[in-house]
Amino acid sequence: MSITVVGSVAYDSIETPSGRRDRCLGGAATYFSLAASFFTDVRVIAVVGQDFGPEQEAVFAEHKIDCRGIERASGKCFCWEGSYLENLNEARTHNTELNVFATFEPKIPAVYRDSQFLFLANIDPVLQRRVREAMPDVKLVAGDTMNYWIDGHRPALLQVLKGLDILLINDGEARMLANDKNLVRAANAVMGMGPRVLVVKHGEYGATLFFGASDGTASKTFRAPAMPLEEVIDPTGAGDSFAGGFFGYLASQPRLTPEAFRRAMFYGSVMGSFAVERFGTERLQLLSRQEIDNRFNAFRELTHLD
Amino acid sequence: MSITVVGSVAYDSIETPSGRRDRCLGGAATYFSLAASFFTDVRVIAVVGQDFGPEQEAVFAEHKIDCRGIERASGKCFCWEGSYLENLNEARTHNTELNVFATFEPKIPAVYRDSQFLFLANIDPVLQRRVREAMPDVKLVAGDTMNYWIDGHRPALLQVLKGLDILLINDGEARMLANDKNLVRAANAVMGMGPRVLVVKHGEYGATLFFGASDGTASKTFRAPAMPLEEVIDPTGAGDSFAGGFFGYLASQPRLTPEAFRRAMFYGSVMGSFAVERFGTERLQLLSRQEIDNRFNAFRELTHLD
Repeated sequence: MSITVVGSVAYDSIETPSGRRDRCLGGAATYFSLAASFFTDVRVIAVVGQDFGPEQEAVFAEHKIDCRGIERASGKCFCWEGSYLENLNEARTHNTELNVFATFEPKIPAVYRDSQFLFLANIDPVLQRRVREAMPDVKLVAGDTMNYWIDGHRPALLQVLKGLDILLINDGEARMLANDKNLVRAANAVMGMGPRVLVVKHGEYGATLFFGASDGTASKTFRAPAMPLEEVIDPTGAGDSFAGGFFGYLASQPRLTPEAFRRAMFYGSVMGSFAVERFGTERLQLLSRQEIDNRFNAFRELTHLD
Repeated sequence: MSITVVGSVAYDSIETPSGRRDRCLGGAATYFSLAASFFTDVRVIAVVGQDFGPEQEAVFAEHKIDCRGIERASGKCFCWEGSYLENLNEARTHNTELNVFATFEPKIPAVYRDSQFLFLANIDPVLQRRVREAMPDVKLVAGDTMNYWIDGHRPALLQVLKGLDILLINDGEARMLANDKNLVRAANAVMGMGPRVLVVKHGEYGATLFFGASDGTASKTFRAPAMPLEEVIDPTGAGDSFAGGFFGYLASQPRLTPEAFRRAMFYGSVMGSFAVERFGTERLQLLSRQEIDNRFNAFRELTHLD
């Protein structure tokens, strides 16, 4: 079944210990939709500027990603510039130019309305909520956010959380949102805010899936590892790629069983592990389904007793 | 088969967000031998002072731990005082009194000489090496160390590493020892120093097992999770308890297959997860084998797809 995703399509200028790249094709919606496209149909809602050309369009087209919801505005694409020189786990932002994103008003094409899966990538919670409310009939809604919205836009974010089935965030964000250093307690508190499933990403240590129970305590958890990698070229987009693999796999399944969620966690880790092997979305652009399944099997060997 | 362990038996005064305890029975050899005692026979080499009495002896006796190698010296037991008020992952040391440990000269009872497994807990590498050399016929030698020895006693430590089959250390120690921030590269470098198996502990994120290959690169890895816990009462001794579960299980196995190592990683995580549930060694003292196996199964559910 198809996923509609709303989020950023951007140009990133990135410096890591492995080198520097200017104006890579990036943005949360780009990473997410490339990763998810290996599993299901993806439809994007975003805005780009006049500097988004045929070369960038081709990246989406080659992965059969529906771009009819990408609006062309006058001006330039959203630009981000950052580095990971001292710490590969945390970006240092040098510059952010919102450009056409500053006045972004998501418009949902009529042809997207039958999507059963909706992903609200990390953007202003006011926009996330608007898209959520415009698609009331979706079967499953997942979303992402970041410390900036948790810290400074909490009331709007809490409204979004009420409408989510699944929230994907990282450790620090979960602890910040719940104001609790203990991960399990933080997870329970966050699930009390709306989402019945919470995925907490731990960077190089993998991710934990929490299923909420009706009494508000986590009834079941699952831990997926990350791939131990000799070299992380560029961590940008790892979390969005995880989300794409996770949600893309779920959308491809006939039934959302606990087993499907567990496998989705593995596919999320798999896509995250590929994303960091090259700058920007380069690795996702070149990936094959066979490579994905091979790495899925490697993850199984990495974690299973027999 | 029996394990001989050399290390500290101590009194710890500990403050955590859950409270404070003075003079808990602790020390690396205590945690290790209690944890390992659920799997195999354990023999301890250590030194205690005149303040080590019948109550402490009973803890070892109840777990059938051989204490004939625990020397009684005049003076007081090794004492450590520390807190985890701001960060449960890192102890802040307030006071260390070496006492009888200052002049510790490990003596190996003749009855220990047929031990096939040797564990060198975290003590001065000069002493670790002396014990290693006095027991040349053991089948498998594992050891631990800490940043203090890596930083200030590197030549002596490198001598110890040459005589180890397995090294168990934490993330920060592995990166420090190899002087490389990347975990996989650091692991390969550490295995180049001697141990053919390396266990890197990640605290609340579990642990990774690296098997060295003949060419010096890791041929195979395995990741065991840690248990997501709602409350960590006292993290003291978690690493030593992990080592006890890991090495104790290995010593109980007829053959050291890759499968045995994988299961050993799970048992290590299981014992570490119990250790932190109460202050000091309280939880290990009260534990049953049935509880251990139940938690082993919970770890399997936490990580396995089917």
